[in-house]
Amino acid sequence: MALSDIRGGERNEAAIAEALGRFSARFGANFQTGAAIRGQHAHTTTYIPAQLPDGVLFAESADDVKAAVAICAALKVPVIPFGTGSSLEGQVNAPSGGISIDFSRMNRVIAVNAEDLDCTVEPGITREELNTYLRDTGLFFPIDPGANASIGGMTSTRASGTNAVRYGTMKDNVLAVTAVTANGEEIRTARRARKSSAGYDLTRLFVGAEGTLGVLTSVTLRLQGIPAVIAGGVCGFPTLKDASDAVIMTIQLGIPVARIELLNTLQVAACNAYSGLSLAEQPTLFVEFHGNEESVRLQSEEFGAIAAECGGGEFRWTADAAERAKLWKARHDAYWAAKALRPGHAVLATDVCVPISRLADCVAETEADIEAHGLVAPIVGHAGDGNFHVSLLFDDKDPEGVATAEAFVARLNGRALAMDGTCTGEHGIGQGKQGFLPGELGGAVTLMAAIKHALDPDGIFNPGKIFSTP
Amino acid sequence: MALSDIRGGERNEAAIAEALGRFSARFGANFQTGAAIRGQHAHTTTYIPAQLPDGVLFAESADDVKAAVAICAALKVPVIPFGTGSSLEGQVNAPSGGISIDFSRMNRVIAVNAEDLDCTVEPGITREELNTYLRDTGLFFPIDPGANASIGGMTSTRASGTNAVRYGTMKDNVLAVTAVTANGEEIRTARRARKSSAGYDLTRLFVGAEGTLGVLTSVTLRLQGIPAVIAGGVCGFPTLKDASDAVIMTIQLGIPVARIELLNTLQVAACNAYSGLSLAEQPTLFVEFHGNEESVRLQSEEFGAIAAECGGGEFRWTADAAERAKLWKARHDAYWAAKALRPGHAVLATDVCVPISRLADCVAETEADIEAHGLVAPIVGHAGDGNFHVSLLFDDKDPEGVATAEAFVARLNGRALAMDGTCTGEHGIGQGKQGFLPGELGGAVTLMAAIKHALDPDGIFNPGKIFSTP
Repeated sequence: MALSDIRGGERNEAAIAEALGRFSARFGANFQTGAAIRGQHAHTTTYIPAQLPDGVLFAESADDVKAAVAICAALKVPVIPFGTGSSLEGQVNAPSGGISIDFSRMNRVIAVNAEDLDCTVEPGITREELNTYLRDTGLFFPIDPGANASIGGMTSTRASGTNAVRYGTMKDNVLAVTAVTANGEEIRTARRARKSSAGYDLTRLFVGAEGTLGVLTSVTLRLQGIPAVIAGGVCGFPTLKDASDAVIMTIQLGIPVARIELLNTLQVAACNAYSGLSLAEQPTLFVEFHGNEESVRLQSEEFGAIAAECGGGEFRWTADAAERAKLWKARHDAYWAAKALRPGHAVLATDVCVPISRLADCVAETEADIEAHGLVAPIVGHAGDGNFHVSLLFDDKDPEGVATAEAFVARLNGRALAMDGTCTGEHGIGQGKQGFLPGELGGAVTLMAAIKHALDPDGIFNPGKIFSTP
Repeated sequence: MALSDIRGGERNEAAIAEALGRFSARFGANFQTGAAIRGQHAHTTTYIPAQLPDGVLFAESADDVKAAVAICAALKVPVIPFGTGSSLEGQVNAPSGGISIDFSRMNRVIAVNAEDLDCTVEPGITREELNTYLRDTGLFFPIDPGANASIGGMTSTRASGTNAVRYGTMKDNVLAVTAVTANGEEIRTARRARKSSAGYDLTRLFVGAEGTLGVLTSVTLRLQGIPAVIAGGVCGFPTLKDASDAVIMTIQLGIPVARIELLNTLQVAACNAYSGLSLAEQPTLFVEFHGNEESVRLQSEEFGAIAAECGGGEFRWTADAAERAKLWKARHDAYWAAKALRPGHAVLATDVCVPISRLADCVAETEADIEAHGLVAPIVGHAGDGNFHVSLLFDDKDPEGVATAEAFVARLNGRALAMDGTCTGEHGIGQGKQGFLPGELGGAVTLMAAIKHALDPDGIFNPGKIFSTP
């Protein structure tokens, strides 16, 4: 799908005008239509051009959301939920106009059940806000996609990140959601029990639905005990294959590694330059272990032995918080480090995921592709999951630059699908990956569309996302 | 819902007669209509009365399944998938007649990807067959519901069992399924990547759908490395509360316990009698640890300290395989041990699941209920998940005995729901739990019904399960 296709979408001007009036009357100053605010609620962190909503509601309660959905359902006007705007595939754009619901004021912690290791929050709370709130309880919410995203947004894109290899993705850590559906009713997908076989798994259906089936009003999350000891380390390898072999052995031996991140040579060089590291410029694994003193020591020793067997250099590990923080800050700043390689260029941040046995091949072939096309695009991967990101630097003002970027993404996705992988491990489909979904899942997409139509017959929930047509 | 309601269901005699002819013509001797075979494919392991299908197809391939669904779809005749018949809530009954598809001949391992720790199997393979096949690879499939169920059946009921506390339930261990849908097409819900954000999570929608959305033709599973060392132990406690506190602390401290099972006093007595154990008759935890020599020792020491702190008796643990096997054999025979308490009586095996902080209350109140009504019903629980089973002994030939059993189940479920729990942790809704689903999930059941109707407009897939009406 070319970006020009994404720009489409029909607007119902009369209905939108009517909706703006009703929102102003109902919500007063909590509903804004200024161009600056609307611009902040269209897409900014991706290469995908912004498509502004017609108005932004700063929702303060589930009742606000119910009222908003009722107005939009009556008028068949689009509703686009907005967390922090850090999604990467155009999820908050408004191709057919409509109302953006901003959740930044719905950021309360509703309940923490420490004994059950769970909590219920409003969708607008960010993961950092939540972990600050939780600190005194000895618990934390582990999922860390890098950006300080909102829990609602992370739920809706089925986010994961660096420590999914140990703690799973949002699908594994959301116990239940409440959501306002097309008929204006607020439903709850599950009780607070750890597991259930009671009917269809609606929780998992809303996780990753990108706001296309309803609007979340709360999320119940699993929590983890804060590890007594966190230790990290770094290890370089002669080749991507060697580093990947170390990852596969680590996973296969059941070492409960908390993070295991693969940086390719260019990404290491970028991090050295941007974050003041002095790593040898070669394929490198960043590793982290969670546990107590004894278990962390044990894991580190086991990993060190594996790394050595796979040709790795010295595995230096430390439980020193400051040293560890510097390393992981550099990892989290990989996007900015990449961006600094070509000032003035845009970054196309894209992800695919393959079975881990194919990770080395997929990364190596992508490196060769990058070189063959004279591109600049460092690679960093959540290696334990077979998921990797390419940060392609391109000139977004130049149509040829855009076309080059799109062609690269198409080849990358074709490669991942040919290896039985997916076109997105954690960013979602949004607008940017729609062209690859049928190739990945074929007739299953027809089932998805049937579900979308059954639950949102008028197509008001985030239209133009996941599916190109409602 | 009373059992008399379950017996209902309309039959389309003309369509069924036509289907029988077409199945015989298409499948020859692989299609059977004898009363004995039909009886084996209706419900036998539960208290729910059997409702026989009109014929049984012994499917040998996905093409057989496609052909069978095509005939049934054209004639609007019910299709009921059958694995081993070990489901507990009437899932394989045929209230409106129709065709049972027996998967015992579709029990092949299609692929094992050892490096990726996954495999793809036909739905009819049992978990024991799969683990026998896998033994030489050093991998195993951990989910263990007790019965030697089929993978297709376990997928469809979202099964779990004793070691879900460490390895999760079927929802966490199914990577993808293929299924024949109402239009006769075979779809695949996901690729083989470890994680994906590509559209709706159809995999999790089919996990737990009890055959009501389509018929599975393959399941792709996560595998685990066989632990180098498995150690187990047993520890008695003065009260249920003390035992539950030990469970909560174990989970909260992140000890990766592989199994932690709670037996109440009557269940311990039943196991002593049936399996020749000599445990003190008090609330007791059976515990198991997986790892290497050092990590298992560490876990056992940590658990021992917790148990002591919670008033537990001596925690005896052993890595000796024979001793451990005897203990877990006794645990798995808990159903038979219960049955032996009242020879000639039927066993109503039912499960609920509550947040673990409420487990002690829920079990204690249930014990009081059992005593107040003069019932015999030992209790055993997957304590780490808050999930427990009651084996109620009752006279299924006496209408009063049946009514007493139903009233007990209703009180048990009311109690679990009042504690924010679920009416079924791992058995599914089937026929037996339909009456409790609206009370648990309210308006969410309407969404489930909308999905059912969208994907199966003629209601051919396992009608009368989960929902009382198609």
